[in-house]
Amino acid sequence: MEKVRLGIIGIGGMGTNHARSILEGKVPDMVLTAVSDTRPERLSFAEKELSKDLALYSDGKELIDSGDVDAVLVATPHYMHPDYVIYALSHGVHAITEKPAGVYTRQVKEMNEAAGKSDKVFAIMLNQRTNCVYRKLHEMIESGELGALKRMNWIITDWYRTQSYYDAAGWKATWAGEGGGVLINQCPHQLDLLQWLCGMPVKVRAFCHNAKWHDIEVEDDVTAYMEFENGATGVFVTTTGDAPGTNRLELTFEMGKIVCEDDKLIFDKLSESVFEHCKHEKEGFKKPDCTRVEIETDGLNEQHVGVLKAFADKILGKGELVAEGVEGINGLTLSNAMYLSSWLDETIELPFDEDLFFRELDKRIATSKLKEDKGIVFDTTGTY
Amino acid sequence: MEKVRLGIIGIGGMGTNHARSILEGKVPDMVLTAVSDTRPERLSFAEKELSKDLALYSDGKELIDSGDVDAVLVATPHYMHPDYVIYALSHGVHAITEKPAGVYTRQVKEMNEAAGKSDKVFAIMLNQRTNCVYRKLHEMIESGELGALKRMNWIITDWYRTQSYYDAAGWKATWAGEGGGVLINQCPHQLDLLQWLCGMPVKVRAFCHNAKWHDIEVEDDVTAYMEFENGATGVFVTTTGDAPGTNRLELTFEMGKIVCEDDKLIFDKLSESVFEHCKHEKEGFKKPDCTRVEIETDGLNEQHVGVLKAFADKILGKGELVAEGVEGINGLTLSNAMYLSSWLDETIELPFDEDLFFRELDKRIATSKLKEDKGIVFDTTGTY
Repeated sequence: MEKVRLGIIGIGGMGTNHARSILEGKVPDMVLTAVSDTRPERLSFAEKELSKDLALYSDGKELIDSGDVDAVLVATPHYMHPDYVIYALSHGVHAITEKPAGVYTRQVKEMNEAAGKSDKVFAIMLNQRTNCVYRKLHEMIESGELGALKRMNWIITDWYRTQSYYDAAGWKATWAGEGGGVLINQCPHQLDLLQWLCGMPVKVRAFCHNAKWHDIEVEDDVTAYMEFENGATGVFVTTTGDAPGTNRLELTFEMGKIVCEDDKLIFDKLSESVFEHCKHEKEGFKKPDCTRVEIETDGLNEQHVGVLKAFADKILGKGELVAEGVEGINGLTLSNAMYLSSWLDETIELPFDEDLFFRELDKRIATSKLKEDKGIVFDTTGTY
Repeated sequence: MEKVRLGIIGIGGMGTNHARSILEGKVPDMVLTAVSDTRPERLSFAEKELSKDLALYSDGKELIDSGDVDAVLVATPHYMHPDYVIYALSHGVHAITEKPAGVYTRQVKEMNEAAGKSDKVFAIMLNQRTNCVYRKLHEMIESGELGALKRMNWIITDWYRTQSYYDAAGWKATWAGEGGGVLINQCPHQLDLLQWLCGMPVKVRAFCHNAKWHDIEVEDDVTAYMEFENGATGVFVTTTGDAPGTNRLELTFEMGKIVCEDDKLIFDKLSESVFEHCKHEKEGFKKPDCTRVEIETDGLNEQHVGVLKAFADKILGKGELVAEGVEGINGLTLSNAMYLSSWLDETIELPFDEDLFFRELDKRIATSKLKEDKGIVFDTTGTY
């Protein structure tokens, strides 16, 4: 194989973005050969607006079986991600899925089991991991120079969406169609980065508010408190109702504090461990010496194209993935735990009862109302 | 009366600071005439280091009854604040108390009832209200220009204290001696400002961690979530264990966001109400237009001296207080609610059961161990 022949399953807003990148040659080792969508109008769109040379399928599994593709990118509504991924991996086709990995962890476990049995590559579109700022932070934490994590505070409230956004597609922001709101749609990146940087918490207490700022079924405002195994605590705040909103991650370590905001990393570096200082310092109010530095990064931030390049490299045996598909379960576990905590109005210890979560979700699906689908597909360029 | 004759009850770290300010003439309409302390060594200190002209009392009530003073400043350990204030106000002496107003709201209600029956002035040392940044913010909120509050996030973790701080005084950081940790000792200012700016929440869910960073009985790490009557949510994070720590208050309103950090107010001002925009905007991702401005203030920040000047002015009929003593109950209600939530491991609705709080506090007092008093009095200048 010289180039990876890719098929895209689901040619909506995100699928179209990815198709354009590949057609424009931004992923040199990948060629787009086929697309599928259950909506005939999206297939005509693909033929007219994207390329006349694409094989078109109304069924994603038919695309997988067609022989036209070595790999698929799954960009359907979230509930269907695991199904298509499992089908691809068990039919000799590499797979990359859009985030979230799925809607409930029980479903994603099956996907991960299928990946375990397959010799095909399984990746996930966690494009924020390509951001130099988060990569650098991850590298610093892994190096051990920061010492123990003490505190995490992420205000990620710059996901503003208007009512029109929610009204555009019938499946959006419904329990039956999407399985949640800001946590499942907008936040998978941050929830993944959170666990990538800090590890998984052991306890979660969340307060999810449904329809707080929009006429929707699901949550558009969340505050979550968490505790990590070493006793560190964290707060995660998100919404689609605030403008201009904030994206500020503050991590406090034994050796100082790092604030990640406006694509910068500001490090307040202590001259010694705050734990040691606390014990030996004779003055009551004296802090350890501290220097403020802006951390340099390599400046690279390839986002989706970077993830697709790495996916092609991995298939062609030339490199490693940005994110293994099986890691998608971690961020999803976090959002599931936040929902469960809010629904039961109690603190959830991890790992939680996945069947209980599924039953609670199912209750909400049972009374969920799909809206009229206006068939509007927004151009999502630069919005994620 | 030309000048207010003041007596200070409790001449420890804070009492000494106030005494020096007055002796140095920083409060022109006030003269220090007497001090009291139960510790003989503090009285000799006052005589030797402060002024030979001071009347000295081992009992604060004797000082109040002495005829030497028109007003008292109560700077004892917290539990005794209400008792001395009640005694002063009901014996014809004006009173200003250090924060917190008391340790439990039931006690402070009795103080406020005594104030209601007295014609004397009752003030509280909420000196942070004199800070131009918070005054300006309060003024902007009161004017209505910001619209409805949506979200509050205060990270106030720059209260670093070493183990030596806690070891210095026997009563510090014990349930019996102080009635709590960072919430009752360091945070009364921020809890007061929080309610002054945002109003009182209706629900509080807090996670207080005892002895997380220090060898003490009480909490030195707190994360609290709250909900306000209009549905706005809030997060309050504090600790004495972090260095350098953070003091960042972010308030999100219908008309934009204000961040208060490093003595600056940065306002992201929307061109229209985010609620209106959300309803009428046809694009899914489009935010209202936004301009960033730094809000100008009058630059004045008189702190303790400002509060004492206003106290003297009020007594002399020339002006108003910075903070009415009876308002001290609000911040205390917040910290009491945070403790109760954490102790019972559940969400607390306000107003809560004050007797239940008292019984729970009493359990902790019963097993509390007073430490050896090393008699160390730190110079607290500039640390609050």
